[in-house]
Amino acid sequence: MTAAVLSIGTELTRGELVNSNAAWLGEQLTALGFEVREHVSVGDDAEQIGAALRRLCEGNAVVVATGGLGPTSDDLTAEAVARCIGVALSRDDASYEHIRRLYASRGRELAGLSEKMADFPEGATIVANPVGTAPGFGVEKAGCRAFFLPGVPAEMQAMFREGVVPAVASLGQRDSHQVHLRLFGLPESQVGERLRDVEGQYEGVTLGYRAHFPEIEVKVHARAASGAEAEAQARKAADAVRALLGEAVFGDRDDSFASVVGQALRDRKKTLAVAESCTGGLVGAMLTDVPGSSDYLLLDAVTYANSAKTKVLGVGQDVLRAYGAVSSETAGAMAEGARRVAGSDLAVAITGVAGPGGGTDDKPVGTVWFGVASDAGTVTLRHHLHGDRARIRQRAAYVALDLARRVAAGLDPAGGPAAATCQEVRGNGAHGNGAHCNGAHGNGDPAGGDSEG
Amino acid sequence: MTAAVLSIGTELTRGELVNSNAAWLGEQLTALGFEVREHVSVGDDAEQIGAALRRLCEGNAVVVATGGLGPTSDDLTAEAVARCIGVALSRDDASYEHIRRLYASRGRELAGLSEKMADFPEGATIVANPVGTAPGFGVEKAGCRAFFLPGVPAEMQAMFREGVVPAVASLGQRDSHQVHLRLFGLPESQVGERLRDVEGQYEGVTLGYRAHFPEIEVKVHARAASGAEAEAQARKAADAVRALLGEAVFGDRDDSFASVVGQALRDRKKTLAVAESCTGGLVGAMLTDVPGSSDYLLLDAVTYANSAKTKVLGVGQDVLRAYGAVSSETAGAMAEGARRVAGSDLAVAITGVAGPGGGTDDKPVGTVWFGVASDAGTVTLRHHLHGDRARIRQRAAYVALDLARRVAAGLDPAGGPAAATCQEVRGNGAHGNGAHCNGAHGNGDPAGGDSEG
Repeated sequence: MTAAVLSIGTELTRGELVNSNAAWLGEQLTALGFEVREHVSVGDDAEQIGAALRRLCEGNAVVVATGGLGPTSDDLTAEAVARCIGVALSRDDASYEHIRRLYASRGRELAGLSEKMADFPEGATIVANPVGTAPGFGVEKAGCRAFFLPGVPAEMQAMFREGVVPAVASLGQRDSHQVHLRLFGLPESQVGERLRDVEGQYEGVTLGYRAHFPEIEVKVHARAASGAEAEAQARKAADAVRALLGEAVFGDRDDSFASVVGQALRDRKKTLAVAESCTGGLVGAMLTDVPGSSDYLLLDAVTYANSAKTKVLGVGQDVLRAYGAVSSETAGAMAEGARRVAGSDLAVAITGVAGPGGGTDDKPVGTVWFGVASDAGTVTLRHHLHGDRARIRQRAAYVALDLARRVAAGLDPAGGPAAATCQEVRGNGAHGNGAHCNGAHGNGDPAGGDSEG
Repeated sequence: MTAAVLSIGTELTRGELVNSNAAWLGEQLTALGFEVREHVSVGDDAEQIGAALRRLCEGNAVVVATGGLGPTSDDLTAEAVARCIGVALSRDDASYEHIRRLYASRGRELAGLSEKMADFPEGATIVANPVGTAPGFGVEKAGCRAFFLPGVPAEMQAMFREGVVPAVASLGQRDSHQVHLRLFGLPESQVGERLRDVEGQYEGVTLGYRAHFPEIEVKVHARAASGAEAEAQARKAADAVRALLGEAVFGDRDDSFASVVGQALRDRKKTLAVAESCTGGLVGAMLTDVPGSSDYLLLDAVTYANSAKTKVLGVGQDVLRAYGAVSSETAGAMAEGARRVAGSDLAVAITGVAGPGGGTDDKPVGTVWFGVASDAGTVTLRHHLHGDRARIRQRAAYVALDLARRVAAGLDPAGGPAAATCQEVRGNGAHGNGAHCNGAHGNGDPAGGDSEG
């Protein structure tokens, strides 16, 4: 069965708003087994709304529309639909009472234009709004079911789940299944290269890629005679994908990288401290985005100025003078200082040149040193990251979180899929001291896995 | 003149990708004076691409399409367009050479499917790709000009600017002008209330609102007989809007809140330290997103654990025991500690309950204390912020930045548009000591300006 998404609002056609509703609905309808053939956005114009609805209804079993249900004069959806299917508008008393009570609770009276939120095309099925004011509705036109929901994402999503899914779920063909894997540390071309043969080996399986910088999501899509067969086939192929990509796969669809890192710390009862320079708080913001992160994150010292590195983390002024803020020595001392000050089990540090200014021949923009300190000693790693300031910062935050995850799990800090261009073991580590660098200081390693960032 | 946007790709119809390209093109075409009537997204299907193109070309002077120009088997745009306008595909030698050289620079050979990136409908105008591999093209069909660009945003945008704008700019009607103002601290309903009479007072002016949580953007759109008249009228109305909204307006379209705060610090040669708890690094991440922020930001201490508040910032264990981490006393001590440790001119601190856990009757989720320390003494403010964890954290970060901006500019810290529910002046301030709270501790103030967050 096919479906279409119709988005209503001049703010969309003028590009004042990115249409995330359409993507959300496309994903939901696809998951329900529909082939989504088209998304259309039109402005607040009754004629255009009607024309789009008529056309989409002719070619599809289900149309889900959003927008134009509010109280202002440019909210024209109910009127346009009534005209399109040739009926009058009529007031729904229960909806009127719902809106009146909501208004009263805010000390407002329901009057004037706002009343029309309770008017629907005759014969329409009302879709209740559990989280907001304007109800939605559904109509049938020559075998096509069309639903009209508000444009506010939270309202639209709740109403779709509660009012639309039960009505259309039986129409979708449940002959497909998707498994999503999230990964970090491999460039997209290498991912594609490693997975080259999977589609040929698993019948009915197609792979899709989606970059959420700096992550990549691999979608394993299987189609088979039944939903159960498709699911089994998708799972088998996903296992093969996991085996081919190794440690780069950190979780599935609903895992954030920070939540996976947090879980690794929590599982092993390890506490963490962070010392940031060029990432400026990004690592802390990612970690603390996860509820309960106070269980393992003790401190994030964003020591942007050299004086702060010295005063807060105890990085020697002689170290900063001799090697500079962006150096193996400073990164190691920052990690050790953060661990000491916070009294944590482990600490990671980031110091680098995010640009656009500040680069030198020796330390070009994108040069980032990482340090990780734990009972096992201190290790520092240098990466050469590509892209603009925002991308360098984001990727550096991920590399730092990956380091924390690896050390918490007792893995080799330098064994991650994102290759460092230099590595030094410092302090009392079991690995012994020594530096291992690929290429000269200051030269990016093109094989370093970051060039497609 | 009217225009339409066509987006090609099954990843769009399936909702795997939010269609930000369409919004960008809608905005650009609107700015060029076109009325953008419709956005359409279709999957990678030559028949659907052709049908959509035919229909959009019939009703519009310009169609801009993106996607489907790459090297893989599902990239069908050129083929679909050729079939739609009834011509054959033919190879463009200059494009072939461009692609061959790019491939060679990456050590790859141009062969197989990739070669088709140099094939275009006969008679098409090539649109060069200055930043990537696949060139685009333009065709004319019965007076409609259609352009086909890659889906990669950076490539699409550069090619639109360099290859499409010069060809279509003369078609747009330059009879309108927009001014964008960005604001923070007023709920949307209050903004609407204050600006209620503007549209009536300025002929041809319409106002639009766009929420980028927790900011609001007000768009002043003017239409007049000429572009110059429209611009003058938009500027007059924008001045009126600025006067009505006061300090809540922090900048225009291209200003980020953090850049405005940074400029306020830079202008007055002030340095800043930050102490974060519940925001977990967000304030630092926002500030350091601005190049050159190391000129004024010395330190951001994300002291998530109480022990870190004590060790790094010197917050007394007795203070934490007696008043708790979320208190006026702790917020004040954090700000003073951060200022002392960093040696900065001023410091702001944030400590609160972001949820979903951790709330109590006394300090429910959303209770956030802010502290600001400077030569003028220390002031603390309590806010009750609404929404989920992410929203509480984001709004708290903005309130803290606003505090820094106000104190740097010598303004009353509590005079911001986002009303605090409690305020205490501590230490050696000129305002004298004392607490001023609205409502009992722990009760949100519904008039506090945050309820529509």
